[in-house]
Amino acid sequence: MIPILDMVTGPVGWLSGDAPSADRVLSTRVRMARNAKGVRFVGKALPAELESLREQIAERLMETEAFADGHFVKLAELPILDRQFLLERHLVSHDLTGDAGARGLVLAPDEKCSVLLNEEDHVRIQAMAPGLQLKASFEAAREIDQSLEEKIDYAVHDELGYITACPTNIGTGMRASILIHLPALVLSQRIKKILTGIQQVGLTVRGFYGEGSEVVGNFFQISNQVTLGETEEETLTKLERIVEQLVDWEEKAQEVLLRDAQLQVEDKILRALGTLKYSRLLGSQEMIGLLSAVRFAHTLGLRNVPPIPVLNDLLLRCQPAHLQRRAGKEMTSEERNAFRAHTVQEALGVQDVPSREG
Amino acid sequence: MIPILDMVTGPVGWLSGDAPSADRVLSTRVRMARNAKGVRFVGKALPAELESLREQIAERLMETEAFADGHFVKLAELPILDRQFLLERHLVSHDLTGDAGARGLVLAPDEKCSVLLNEEDHVRIQAMAPGLQLKASFEAAREIDQSLEEKIDYAVHDELGYITACPTNIGTGMRASILIHLPALVLSQRIKKILTGIQQVGLTVRGFYGEGSEVVGNFFQISNQVTLGETEEETLTKLERIVEQLVDWEEKAQEVLLRDAQLQVEDKILRALGTLKYSRLLGSQEMIGLLSAVRFAHTLGLRNVPPIPVLNDLLLRCQPAHLQRRAGKEMTSEERNAFRAHTVQEALGVQDVPSREG
Repeated sequence: MIPILDMVTGPVGWLSGDAPSADRVLSTRVRMARNAKGVRFVGKALPAELESLREQIAERLMETEAFADGHFVKLAELPILDRQFLLERHLVSHDLTGDAGARGLVLAPDEKCSVLLNEEDHVRIQAMAPGLQLKASFEAAREIDQSLEEKIDYAVHDELGYITACPTNIGTGMRASILIHLPALVLSQRIKKILTGIQQVGLTVRGFYGEGSEVVGNFFQISNQVTLGETEEETLTKLERIVEQLVDWEEKAQEVLLRDAQLQVEDKILRALGTLKYSRLLGSQEMIGLLSAVRFAHTLGLRNVPPIPVLNDLLLRCQPAHLQRRAGKEMTSEERNAFRAHTVQEALGVQDVPSREG
Repeated sequence: MIPILDMVTGPVGWLSGDAPSADRVLSTRVRMARNAKGVRFVGKALPAELESLREQIAERLMETEAFADGHFVKLAELPILDRQFLLERHLVSHDLTGDAGARGLVLAPDEKCSVLLNEEDHVRIQAMAPGLQLKASFEAAREIDQSLEEKIDYAVHDELGYITACPTNIGTGMRASILIHLPALVLSQRIKKILTGIQQVGLTVRGFYGEGSEVVGNFFQISNQVTLGETEEETLTKLERIVEQLVDWEEKAQEVLLRDAQLQVEDKILRALGTLKYSRLLGSQEMIGLLSAVRFAHTLGLRNVPPIPVLNDLLLRCQPAHLQRRAGKEMTSEERNAFRAHTVQEALGVQDVPSREG
């Protein structure tokens, strides 16, 4: 089998920036948790049982249109660095860097669709898209879901809905989320109150890397908390309405900033650009913050700013495992920081950085 | 009379950077304090008395070769902003922004030689030069001194030497100083001990703008404290020896930095360059610090760095009065900060700063 990392190298489809509201909403994700009837949950099942299920599902998936030219990977066969790489691409979840067990990943070439096998649940279908595309992402996930359902009996309860390993997913088993950039609401210090309000209407707010991850660079991941007692359509409609409301508030906060502190805001943004273009050492968190500031330049109407697809791509491409994959070796934190600065400057087309070699 | 500020606009000769050790020693200055015999000190004399003396000395100076194409200005005729401008060019001293009385300035076109009249003393001869040129600067000042002495009787005491308004200048009346850049000694935290040592051997350490001015950007002005009991030659030799010692220590500190923390030092320098190139608002003190960092790139051997004469020129040209003179109007601090950023970017040839106008 070709190592997955030789196939997975380019920009990801769901961060292309070519989509509705993509200047503020980076991406949309819909994830469905499913389990096979008659097979014990991942935590209780025997390895052989899970491996057999994995083969069966993967085979079925590879027959579908979504995964026609796709890839199937057994995670245990990948070195830790490669699993970290997949985590950075939002394809596997956090606990996959330890014992991979019988876990598997089926992946479409553009990475918009993927299915994670034997993670928390037997099946985790994931559909991603650039910008705000909740309905389209849901349809993409549902199509994969239906293809699987033709061959596999899901564990379903008549009244509750889909049965999942963790009770918080029971019901629709669906988690829809969007990754949104809200710099004006952060700068004008309105964000805290707004996020509190969002949580009160049953939504969850997280950082760039989902559960347990810190908010950096004013990027917020917003998803539904409720899976029980409402339909998928209701969940999506509510989330979409809230996102539209957030975009509206962000636009208004931006107008106020432009009116009251244009030079100060532009100064912050431009200094971020200067640092991206000229630093010799660039930390991962710092870079995300700087890319966030430069992204803000677009919605503020500044010209001559690096395009959004370039900024999006750097968000991924300069993560630690991505850098090490590209360098073809393990690197110390300082080596990564130097290579990250170099990679950013290459992507931004900077050619006049002073150096001793010059 | 042509307003002095129409004549004084370009880079100053003493910051041309074209001189020995000019990468570390920005400039040399030799100043001689003299008073006319039989005329009361400035603080005690009548205005008419001082005005008459001023005319007499100015006339004599304008006949000399040094001031052949020079200018004579009565400071009281200049608006405060223009006096501030002359202060920024190191041509007048701090207290000239208030009542200018009978003060006058005679100035050579390249500004290397000047004579300030009726300030603390009747006569303050000043010779400046780029780099480390103590002997040459002394000779230039002495030549002016001798031309004057042919026409004016100086107040001299047989044993003490020249009599001055402030007792700290009695004797040679000479203050020689150099402006030196010591970033490696600052970064390696050795500077404090070294400066203490310098003060113990009878030298004074000050900031970029002399007495009472703060040290910014790792620029130190070092001058002799003693004017009594040693000859001019002895003073100059001692100062020169100390400066050579400082340059030697700085070089060694730099080698250690390059060995132990090259990337970190380069990162600091390059980020400073990025901020200079891309900020929208730039404070005066901050700019001096950033220019200092970029200047350090030269001695570290980085290529593709803005040349030293450009960096030197910005040190002067972006001071508040210089900016306002150039803009042709008084400006608020924020307006100056914006214009400063613009001026720096123009000088560095930056053409891709994002803006709303595009």
